[in-house]
Amino acid sequence: MSILDSIRGPDDVKKIKKDQLDDLANEIRGTLISVIGRNGGHLASNLGVVELTIALHRVFDSPKDKIIFDVSHQTYVHKLLTGRNGPKFSQIRLSGGYSGFSAPEESESDAFVAGHAGTALSVALGFAHVRDKAGIGDRNNHIIAVLGDASMSCGMTLEALNNLPATAKRLIVIVNDNEFSIGSNVGAIPLYLNKILRSKFYGSITASIKKILGSGKVGKSIIRNVRTLQRAIKSVFLPTSYFEYYGLRYFGPIDGHNIAQLEEILEFCKRCDRPILVHVKTIKGRGCVDAVSSPERFHGVEPAANIDGTQRQCEKKIVSYGEILGMELTKLARKDKRIIGVVAAMAYGTGLFHMRENLPGQYVDVGIAEEYAVTFCAALAKAGMRPVCAIYSTFLQRAFDQVIHDVCLQNLPIIFCLDRAGVSPRDGATHHGMFDISYLRLIPNSIILQPRSGQEFVDALHSAFAWQRPVFIRYQRFCRVERDTSSIEFSKFLELGSGEELVAGKKICLLALGNMVEVAEEVAKHLRIAGVDPGIVSAIFAKPIDGGMLEKLGKNYEIIATLEDNVLAGGFGSAVLEFYDSIPVRPRVLRFGWPDKFVRHGSSVDILRSENGLSAGEIADKITGMFFVKT
Amino acid sequence: MSILDSIRGPDDVKKIKKDQLDDLANEIRGTLISVIGRNGGHLASNLGVVELTIALHRVFDSPKDKIIFDVSHQTYVHKLLTGRNGPKFSQIRLSGGYSGFSAPEESESDAFVAGHAGTALSVALGFAHVRDKAGIGDRNNHIIAVLGDASMSCGMTLEALNNLPATAKRLIVIVNDNEFSIGSNVGAIPLYLNKILRSKFYGSITASIKKILGSGKVGKSIIRNVRTLQRAIKSVFLPTSYFEYYGLRYFGPIDGHNIAQLEEILEFCKRCDRPILVHVKTIKGRGCVDAVSSPERFHGVEPAANIDGTQRQCEKKIVSYGEILGMELTKLARKDKRIIGVVAAMAYGTGLFHMRENLPGQYVDVGIAEEYAVTFCAALAKAGMRPVCAIYSTFLQRAFDQVIHDVCLQNLPIIFCLDRAGVSPRDGATHHGMFDISYLRLIPNSIILQPRSGQEFVDALHSAFAWQRPVFIRYQRFCRVERDTSSIEFSKFLELGSGEELVAGKKICLLALGNMVEVAEEVAKHLRIAGVDPGIVSAIFAKPIDGGMLEKLGKNYEIIATLEDNVLAGGFGSAVLEFYDSIPVRPRVLRFGWPDKFVRHGSSVDILRSENGLSAGEIADKITGMFFVKT
Repeated sequence: MSILDSIRGPDDVKKIKKDQLDDLANEIRGTLISVIGRNGGHLASNLGVVELTIALHRVFDSPKDKIIFDVSHQTYVHKLLTGRNGPKFSQIRLSGGYSGFSAPEESESDAFVAGHAGTALSVALGFAHVRDKAGIGDRNNHIIAVLGDASMSCGMTLEALNNLPATAKRLIVIVNDNEFSIGSNVGAIPLYLNKILRSKFYGSITASIKKILGSGKVGKSIIRNVRTLQRAIKSVFLPTSYFEYYGLRYFGPIDGHNIAQLEEILEFCKRCDRPILVHVKTIKGRGCVDAVSSPERFHGVEPAANIDGTQRQCEKKIVSYGEILGMELTKLARKDKRIIGVVAAMAYGTGLFHMRENLPGQYVDVGIAEEYAVTFCAALAKAGMRPVCAIYSTFLQRAFDQVIHDVCLQNLPIIFCLDRAGVSPRDGATHHGMFDISYLRLIPNSIILQPRSGQEFVDALHSAFAWQRPVFIRYQRFCRVERDTSSIEFSKFLELGSGEELVAGKKICLLALGNMVEVAEEVAKHLRIAGVDPGIVSAIFAKPIDGGMLEKLGKNYEIIATLEDNVLAGGFGSAVLEFYDSIPVRPRVLRFGWPDKFVRHGSSVDILRSENGLSAGEIADKITGMFFVKT
Repeated sequence: MSILDSIRGPDDVKKIKKDQLDDLANEIRGTLISVIGRNGGHLASNLGVVELTIALHRVFDSPKDKIIFDVSHQTYVHKLLTGRNGPKFSQIRLSGGYSGFSAPEESESDAFVAGHAGTALSVALGFAHVRDKAGIGDRNNHIIAVLGDASMSCGMTLEALNNLPATAKRLIVIVNDNEFSIGSNVGAIPLYLNKILRSKFYGSITASIKKILGSGKVGKSIIRNVRTLQRAIKSVFLPTSYFEYYGLRYFGPIDGHNIAQLEEILEFCKRCDRPILVHVKTIKGRGCVDAVSSPERFHGVEPAANIDGTQRQCEKKIVSYGEILGMELTKLARKDKRIIGVVAAMAYGTGLFHMRENLPGQYVDVGIAEEYAVTFCAALAKAGMRPVCAIYSTFLQRAFDQVIHDVCLQNLPIIFCLDRAGVSPRDGATHHGMFDISYLRLIPNSIILQPRSGQEFVDALHSAFAWQRPVFIRYQRFCRVERDTSSIEFSKFLELGSGEELVAGKKICLLALGNMVEVAEEVAKHLRIAGVDPGIVSAIFAKPIDGGMLEKLGKNYEIIATLEDNVLAGGFGSAVLEFYDSIPVRPRVLRFGWPDKFVRHGSSVDILRSENGLSAGEIADKITGMFFVKT
């Protein structure tokens, strides 16, 4: 039996002999590389925290002690050490397997849900308040927040830091510094952390002072004066580190791959009665040569077998919309200096690394700071630039208020490229981009569209520059193209708010948005077998809605079935309902989209659709059911 | 002619003789007190920045130089000095008058829209990027961000600070420190600012060191060693102020009521080629004894004549929902130690100052940090507490993602009390709370309701504790009660998702939510005159919708008219449409709510409703129009 297999929970971690710990770490790395290689997942970040997680479970008692992982894509090791090493771990991120993120329903050791960066410190302060101020529950437990250095640039983390002095008595904040973040490290605080790393160990100052004094020519008689001087300097220069402004005692940097050293400092922290920040230095991707050399590319690894299950048998090539965006925007930006690409720590995920590489002067990465990203873009637009803000659909939720006030209220020409719209199947509930149509449609002045192909996306991008308004282009991760991305050339401007009738039919019309056109085509095949001859319309726009076309469709068809990769509540189908409610023509509307529940992770888009009644077959069945009832 | 009347724009401010400046300040204060006393508005904050604004316009050239006011409720003086002293200023916040916030459509001197705190630095960095990096437009102008100290605790400000080193070359950040914020000052950074104020002038350190050395017994021979020591200490202790971690050179504190001193430092800033922070100390409410002694109460002043125009002729007393919340929650919290009230710098506005005064241990003010507030509450709930998060509807937009992930995904029992739902008439577009039904309804697990009276609110609050789920209670500012708030006692638990039929009628049913029930009653009067006998139903819940009742109504009535104080897109009416789309019974639905445009400020709720076709008369006309067409 391997050492890892002997671990049924945190207690077993504590029983491992010190000289076996490195072997345990190696076994864990082997498991991670094999499982993530198969299922896809956050390889580099998990490889980086193996020793840190072992040390945490040797020193603290989870779930009594609350270990709160920020973002929580780095909790695979934690899962292995808290009773979850088994078949469901081998199936992690797949249907039936564990989530790739912290999941309280899996284990009490997962203290809180997390998916977006920057929440851990707020959660920790909440727990600390209950323990220290409200006096509810265990009053002696430890609360440990584990953040990446990149989360230090996130507004929420800083809001929590600011509240720290008033809230927490005893709290351990571990900053896992891999000098990296998802893209390159951005901003003052990560830079500050790096400066500490490059300088000598912080604590050595005392030694330095003594050394200087000792080697000086002046005798011991000046020591008293120097002490006075020190006090004077301290009174102004203190607090001595950035974190101490927030009442956090700083310790570090600590070698995050040295379990013994980690245990020592964590044991020390346990005995401290004040908030402490431990600055841990790790190497992202440690134990995997490729991941260490290209951590950005290995941040999220693709499953070996297929690409998120979306690869179906066909002759076309699968490419990412991000790749198309990166290439096309670079082309456009070469001709127009006003164009600037803005990302929030997602150069690779959004495809804008093409801008970074080719036109660095027209590219800005603001770090994990979506609120700032959006308002920064608004100011750029106000000053005459043409910003393109590439952000995942789910992350734009962070900047909802800024989209309303700073962008749409001023009707500023910014193009938002919302990647990962629809489902991000293996990531799950915190990463699905299934709310954006609903939360953007309610904002005045917004234009929302979803292309159904790489070609239409390129046309949409060119058109969006012409519309001179806030435009939100949403798209799922992948699309299929004829040959490769370079084969796509801008072909025509889209007419704002105009859909396209693809197939004429009788009685029933499938009105689909973006990627759902492909599903509609499948549905049509099923329907034709059942003797129904549906029309197919590509809506393209969720806002403004194509009123003229809808009116015509309402006259020509009895049933309009809307298909969207968004929640039903307030989505595209609701917009269609709202429109028909305003005119005399009123066909029956059948809406297909994600239901009013949080959709967990699953192996593929198709599986998640099937689980939620959204496969082509089920949609066809529902339509024929209604159709034959009606006729 | 007064000095103020001689000012047609910033150029004229520069022409005023130095010895006339105090008179100008006095005239401005007189105007502010008189106009704000009449129209209501942000009195204390504007009184505090009179001299600062004069100095800004004497030193800088607006609109060539961009002065970006954070929050921008303190821009009245700026408006007076940039050509807007006149009748529209006398009508500020009223229909036809200027906005009480920064409004680029009024003047080019208003560089950007602002209404929620914390955006100014992000905007400034965007402008600076265009000037310094993109090289578009004027490359020599100055960019000045004016923030209150309270905005320093806002996540967005900190995200921008973090991006400062990479983005800005030349930038002037003015922190207007009134040691206050809207509620009490919260957090590490405001505390830090206060510490600076209480200590001696920062720059005096050099003098201190010299003094100590000079008085020491050791001779000049040690100077060289001391210099080495200083360098050693500096290398660790520096940067010497919090702001310098962000690359901001700190200057201050400066007396914000001394125009000469302000001009001097601002002139110095103009010549600096690096980002500078000027810490200006002002007294909020200066020039008005009452406002200085109770700045929190005088933050927003009520108009003298009436209360936001909602006072109609009736015998009932008008009270604020916030007052009811504060009183009732205090009662409940006395009996249940798990109850805790959380606000984001809005103790008075939300009514939770009652908790602060009576149960300070069960009350937390997190400062202007809505993201933190929500996730902090989520952690409190997870740890067994019963948090009540009182936040304005418009400000909750800031924490949209946190509501989705940290609250609703975990289905945690938190009660959100959303004040100022509907319109905040004199504040305008940035303060209306007309989006919340739409943006909360799309989130799984959310319960959304709106009481139609103070009594129903108290019952809703008690019921919400029983439901043990995320509950969002929205309400407008004021309601009418029989005698006073103390006359309201909890009467009965509301049944989750159940509406209430108030009046039975024929053919047409008015289905109203919350405050719109009162409007529905008015509509009914109009309809009865026209010979129509409508039913009236109070929906109470926007989610879950009362399916059983809707089905019954659908059978009994031909037309269902929904009335809501929210945008139509994705709102309550859409939920009704969505429901009827899912069942065979399909009455005609007529939806009434705010249209898909930003609604500007106006004198009263009634005026804004009339301007948008939402007065009782217009609603009745539309219904009868349809009714008679149909029958």
